[in-house]
Amino acid sequence: MLKEALIGTLCGAVVLTIGILIGHFGIQKNSAPSWVNDVAKDVDEALIQQFLSEVETFQLQENLRELTKVPHMATSPGDEETVKYVLKRWQDPETGLDEAWRQEYEIYLSFPNPTNPNKVTVVNSLDSVLFTVREREVNYTADQNDPQVVQPFAAYSPAGHAKGKLVFANQGKPSDFQHLNKTIDLRGTIAITRYGGEGRGRKAINAAAYGVVGLLVYTDPLDMNDGLMSDTNETYPHSWYLPPTGVERGAYNRDFGDLLTPYLAAKEDTYRIPPEDITGIPPIPTQPIGFQDARTLICALAGEAAPKDWQGGLDCIYNLGGPGFKPTSPFNNSDVKLDIYNEEKIVNSSNVMGVIRGSVEPDRYVIYGNHRDSWVHGAIDPSSGTAVMLEITRVLGRMVKKGKWRPRRSIIFGSWGAEEFGLIGSAEYTEEYFTKLSERTVGYINVDISVFANATLSASAMPSMQSVIFRAAKQVNAPGFDSTSVYDNWIRYTNRTSPAHGIIPRVGYLTGAGSDYAAFVHYLGITSIDMSYTYDRSKTNARIYPAYHTAYDTFDYASRFIDPGFVAHQAVGRTAGNILIRLADSLLLPFNCKDYAESLEDYLNTAVNLYQKDLIAKSISMEPLSKAVANFRKEAEQLDKVIQSSDLANETPLKVRKINDQLMLMDRAFLNPLAFPNEYGFRHVIWASSSSGKPTFPGIADAFAQANSSHLASDWKKVHYHLSVVAQAIDGAANMLKEVI
Amino acid sequence: MLKEALIGTLCGAVVLTIGILIGHFGIQKNSAPSWVNDVAKDVDEALIQQFLSEVETFQLQENLRELTKVPHMATSPGDEETVKYVLKRWQDPETGLDEAWRQEYEIYLSFPNPTNPNKVTVVNSLDSVLFTVREREVNYTADQNDPQVVQPFAAYSPAGHAKGKLVFANQGKPSDFQHLNKTIDLRGTIAITRYGGEGRGRKAINAAAYGVVGLLVYTDPLDMNDGLMSDTNETYPHSWYLPPTGVERGAYNRDFGDLLTPYLAAKEDTYRIPPEDITGIPPIPTQPIGFQDARTLICALAGEAAPKDWQGGLDCIYNLGGPGFKPTSPFNNSDVKLDIYNEEKIVNSSNVMGVIRGSVEPDRYVIYGNHRDSWVHGAIDPSSGTAVMLEITRVLGRMVKKGKWRPRRSIIFGSWGAEEFGLIGSAEYTEEYFTKLSERTVGYINVDISVFANATLSASAMPSMQSVIFRAAKQVNAPGFDSTSVYDNWIRYTNRTSPAHGIIPRVGYLTGAGSDYAAFVHYLGITSIDMSYTYDRSKTNARIYPAYHTAYDTFDYASRFIDPGFVAHQAVGRTAGNILIRLADSLLLPFNCKDYAESLEDYLNTAVNLYQKDLIAKSISMEPLSKAVANFRKEAEQLDKVIQSSDLANETPLKVRKINDQLMLMDRAFLNPLAFPNEYGFRHVIWASSSSGKPTFPGIADAFAQANSSHLASDWKKVHYHLSVVAQAIDGAANMLKEVI
Repeated sequence: MLKEALIGTLCGAVVLTIGILIGHFGIQKNSAPSWVNDVAKDVDEALIQQFLSEVETFQLQENLRELTKVPHMATSPGDEETVKYVLKRWQDPETGLDEAWRQEYEIYLSFPNPTNPNKVTVVNSLDSVLFTVREREVNYTADQNDPQVVQPFAAYSPAGHAKGKLVFANQGKPSDFQHLNKTIDLRGTIAITRYGGEGRGRKAINAAAYGVVGLLVYTDPLDMNDGLMSDTNETYPHSWYLPPTGVERGAYNRDFGDLLTPYLAAKEDTYRIPPEDITGIPPIPTQPIGFQDARTLICALAGEAAPKDWQGGLDCIYNLGGPGFKPTSPFNNSDVKLDIYNEEKIVNSSNVMGVIRGSVEPDRYVIYGNHRDSWVHGAIDPSSGTAVMLEITRVLGRMVKKGKWRPRRSIIFGSWGAEEFGLIGSAEYTEEYFTKLSERTVGYINVDISVFANATLSASAMPSMQSVIFRAAKQVNAPGFDSTSVYDNWIRYTNRTSPAHGIIPRVGYLTGAGSDYAAFVHYLGITSIDMSYTYDRSKTNARIYPAYHTAYDTFDYASRFIDPGFVAHQAVGRTAGNILIRLADSLLLPFNCKDYAESLEDYLNTAVNLYQKDLIAKSISMEPLSKAVANFRKEAEQLDKVIQSSDLANETPLKVRKINDQLMLMDRAFLNPLAFPNEYGFRHVIWASSSSGKPTFPGIADAFAQANSSHLASDWKKVHYHLSVVAQAIDGAANMLKEVI
Repeated sequence: MLKEALIGTLCGAVVLTIGILIGHFGIQKNSAPSWVNDVAKDVDEALIQQFLSEVETFQLQENLRELTKVPHMATSPGDEETVKYVLKRWQDPETGLDEAWRQEYEIYLSFPNPTNPNKVTVVNSLDSVLFTVREREVNYTADQNDPQVVQPFAAYSPAGHAKGKLVFANQGKPSDFQHLNKTIDLRGTIAITRYGGEGRGRKAINAAAYGVVGLLVYTDPLDMNDGLMSDTNETYPHSWYLPPTGVERGAYNRDFGDLLTPYLAAKEDTYRIPPEDITGIPPIPTQPIGFQDARTLICALAGEAAPKDWQGGLDCIYNLGGPGFKPTSPFNNSDVKLDIYNEEKIVNSSNVMGVIRGSVEPDRYVIYGNHRDSWVHGAIDPSSGTAVMLEITRVLGRMVKKGKWRPRRSIIFGSWGAEEFGLIGSAEYTEEYFTKLSERTVGYINVDISVFANATLSASAMPSMQSVIFRAAKQVNAPGFDSTSVYDNWIRYTNRTSPAHGIIPRVGYLTGAGSDYAAFVHYLGITSIDMSYTYDRSKTNARIYPAYHTAYDTFDYASRFIDPGFVAHQAVGRTAGNILIRLADSLLLPFNCKDYAESLEDYLNTAVNLYQKDLIAKSISMEPLSKAVANFRKEAEQLDKVIQSSDLANETPLKVRKINDQLMLMDRAFLNPLAFPNEYGFRHVIWASSSSGKPTFPGIADAFAQANSSHLASDWKKVHYHLSVVAQAIDGAANMLKEVI
């Protein structure tokens, strides 16, 4: 009986088990489709750690070495070599991307004539040449001897001949010429100005307004070299400082994008405006020179001494000019003469594009970009950034090729062409794909010069990105430290007190057009970041790294003086890549609109402090602006509550998408294509560039400055107009955050 | 043993069953979340049938009766009554919407002075009044006697006094004044023009350009009454024809939206341009009159006979004017005098908004709208449309309130204010919520005048909506037939041969700004439809239904002469509601981009035929445009293949959303805010209004007409510019359809 009972129990157990198995596996249940888990997947922290561990200094170094082998000015043979190199890397079967291709535009560039170089001379009344400015920089390494090194020039300066008495015009600001004009008749003069204080192109425009007929621009050793001048022991190749013959090249146009095809992609058959209709380029021949030659000219100037704050680092008193030279100088009674032979051409320029397709939301893009073109070898500008981009794509590409990873959203990499001539490659790209990019782009990450110096991280971004930047920076070791994060290092150098977060690193605003983020921020309204490693400002006053745009910005320079060991490159690559992965993989986009609200409140407070009293006197109320900012704050808080109280991984993916769309598209509401009709591409009414220098809403600030100076009723109306534009844009952005119906 | 075996088997079976049950229900399997079925739900055809069956003629009739009880000109007391009535309906606990509210703007309107009415007189040289134009229309029913009936006036005509000899200027087109000017010095004259052929406001602008100092506008019986003139037996109240004293009121502004706040929502504190800066309104005093008074004036005119095609339906020869009257007429040597006392005011106007929240994609909107304001009782314009809207919301609202239905996407209903003054309520709404609406709106359905006449459906729409319109029209019975669908009836009246579909009803294009779709189409680029029931053109040449904008557009008129039995109202309500439900509930948006391609090809062919030869002579290639259209066709076909080959109900909802976003947002790529800088709100480069009258791309057509007339090189450049704008917009739209990465 016991045996039978045992057998019975056993049989029963077996039958029960069979039953359970049939019940569980054999009967179709309302089972979850395979995609249910995919759509709920969030960023994988282990994958981020793996990414961080695979970013290698050696690879960064070799990337930089390859990218800087030859000069690669836009559309030059060297540029074509870098196009092929980037394509090869992104098409590599082991470490490449899903797809990579070349995207071409026919753009309007300006070059010196290779067989008829620009000349700057001092000539006497018989037209005998007493002195000639160097045409090339001194060779210290073989790099400077490359025949492809372009003569220093001011791109978009017109060709032409100008001759006149020299004057020193400080930085070429309107106020500088105004000051000079009090005592000197500037008509027919040549002005020499130093870099800094004013955009390159604007110096020439400002000068021409006073009748100046030619312009020289030089780099003052006080502004760039902390006063050092001698190449026997002080400047490169002995240090990072600029040698006496180094010349900063540059584009002298005010607007970005191809100058002949504003708001249209520069294809072969695209309508082009007549070149004579271009605005914002030098009206007079213009040429940059080095401080060795500038010294020869400035130290010979007659006239009264320039104001104290105009004095620079050259070893003489800077006089204003008689106009012209001292009677005691060998140049007595002589003129300065500019013979400029620049030529404009419509040439073919390439962006190189690469993508990793998204798995779950392929129609959401995270874009990462940098320009590829340089002025000469461009080791720091831009190849330090391209080296970082290629290292990020190598690490991510390998994961993709091995089948270990595919991002939730699509990632687009852009190696832009012709940035140095006015952000042209990226601007044309945004013009060609305007609606597609506007509707689908989650964020844009720009890493141009990745390492200005190796002291600390620096970042500018839309405020909603602050939190993801911080999160990434906390996960990366700071170069030069064993256990300090990039974040902890950063906060020591530049910080602020946030009402919400206490002391935090200061993230700047993207208010200018300094690199390729411009079209993404100002034209498309895409949430963006621009980042790099940079200086310890307690150690140098250099305006920028001293070899900027000269023949000395080489691999040797970068690897010996800017980032020995490539550890800062690595830190930037890790931080930027970390942000990139988070934007691409996070279930919920890592954007915090409450931080945006904090910035708007900050701008509002500044505006109220600066303008309210005067505006009340003009019967213009700032109330709608205050209300709009409060409304934005309220909706940002409310959306945050919705997010906090949601179990997003278990809800319909359309709810997550809804919130992500709110976060992604909010910034688009700040665009107003009519607010700044004369500023190409500037449509973002919060971050547009401003000439007022006030940290507040740019349209209001500039209109106020104008009205406060002109006292015209029509100008006060413009202040009111810009108040309405900004208030309604902020209300529009708040509406994007509001519960959707 | 048998018994034991039986018991054993039974026990075994029980145990097995228990096992199966445990296995199936007791063990957690990867089971589908509850939302998996919701996100895949498609439109329910049974629900559509139910909707169709519940749209009732009696309800439509009672809606119209209620809406037309009193005159309800924008911002008048009667308008406020309709605001409250619509709100009451939409807040009804049994048949209302989820939510309804009032949305207010402070807008710039123009009214006659109620205590000092406008006067038009004939005065002799001693200033004695020989004749006075009627100030009010004749009363045939009590309706015309309502003290709230506004005196006929030309809104936005300036106040002022004008006196001069009368001339007849046909339709007031530029060519009409050009013709007159050949033989008559128009300076100081008063012109009388008939309605039609040219926009109201433009007649005055055209006149003023020739020195005309005052303008009269009247309705010619030939244009409106098929020649009939007598109110004793021919015109209303005996028929639908306009009585002799009926006067078409109207807004005489060229641009839509509030005139003081272009591109900004007209809130209390919004910046307003100075009224003197308004463009596009009559520069001279202007007044509309009836044909009885026009006859008195025109038939007395001296001068030579007007051209044959200027002659109208009045029983006399139309002379051009001496200028002035015949010596044989009692008005010999007399002037016509206008004393206009119109006043502009900034007044508070309401939209009424109502919503049904979407269940699955609340952040996708289908918008259905019509204006609420009329000139007088507005039975046909706009109350026939409002009656339909309220019947649709009653039927849908009841389903929602009973818990029987909730749309996949959100539905927004808009009862716009102040349309008659220039589509103001809808324009301000789109300005206030620009980004939100742009990013989320699937489609806009406009039903303004729902029934012009009861012969056939008429629709204008973006071409991608054609298929859903046809589908809906096939499901609705045509009024007056037992078993003919609205579609089958329609195809008899107006059809075309489509390369893809053969003979189909002709759907028009939304190229103008005739109703509230304008801001949605031209400013926001939202896929839209405007629809109504309309005439049998073989039976009348009436320019529009004859009581249009007069005191005779009453419930009596509508129910006796336009749609007895309200069956056409019902057909429109059923068709529009059917489209609405399909836009709101379809899993895949019912938009066909191949039909859009067909329209673009049609426009391209027209452009090539009209312009290519001349453009080649100017070295302007149309190749980029042809390529862009071919590119659009290719991508539309490709997307269609993706759709056809997908099992959308079983794939991730994000894939469906991706395709729907492509379909929804494609039209946005056609927007270019800079293409037509002088045309308020016109940004859609395919459907913008054109003065050329050619059925092709408006920017190219207008620029070509200008260049072909001026022969200026700079004007030919503008043709090239518009070619690039259109080609790149079409490429941009194709990019939206392309596989997303």
